[in-house]
Amino acid sequence: MKANIHVMLKDGVLDPQGEAVRHALGAMGFDGVNGVRQGKVIALDLADGTSEDTIARMCEALLANTVIESYRIEIL
Amino acid sequence: MKANIHVMLKDGVLDPQGEAVRHALGAMGFDGVNGVRQGKVIALDLADGTSEDTIARMCEALLANTVIESYRIEIL
Repeated sequence: MKANIHVMLKDGVLDPQGEAVRHALGAMGFDGVNGVRQGKVIALDLADGTSEDTIARMCEALLANTVIESYRIEIL
Repeated sequence: MKANIHVMLKDGVLDPQGEAVRHALGAMGFDGVNGVRQGKVIALDLADGTSEDTIARMCEALLANTVIESYRIEIL
């Protein structure tokens, strides 16, 4: 089975990487870019039957820093 | 309008970051993790009416390295 984990910085946490992308897009002539946030997606190829609970434990323990990041589990 | 860009390494391109995550999950006792690929997601807040074509040009020019990465545009 496959699962995608989407990890994004929580609202209110400064995102310098996203800000750099926003600035670069503006400098390249793309108008109307009001905001950019950058996160990561982790595509897991797991043994069949792995529970969503187990995946959540992976996220809490390693994949996301839950102090500043939120995560969403998408099972494919 | 909002759009998410999902950028992943193409198949066949070595992903040391994903491999490190796979190894770490195994070392933490999570069995059955067969593979991990890590990509990024870029959440754009754009002026209303920005065309998908414009977003694709942003991806080609800056957001993805199309030599080794593929991207997918998701308009929300």
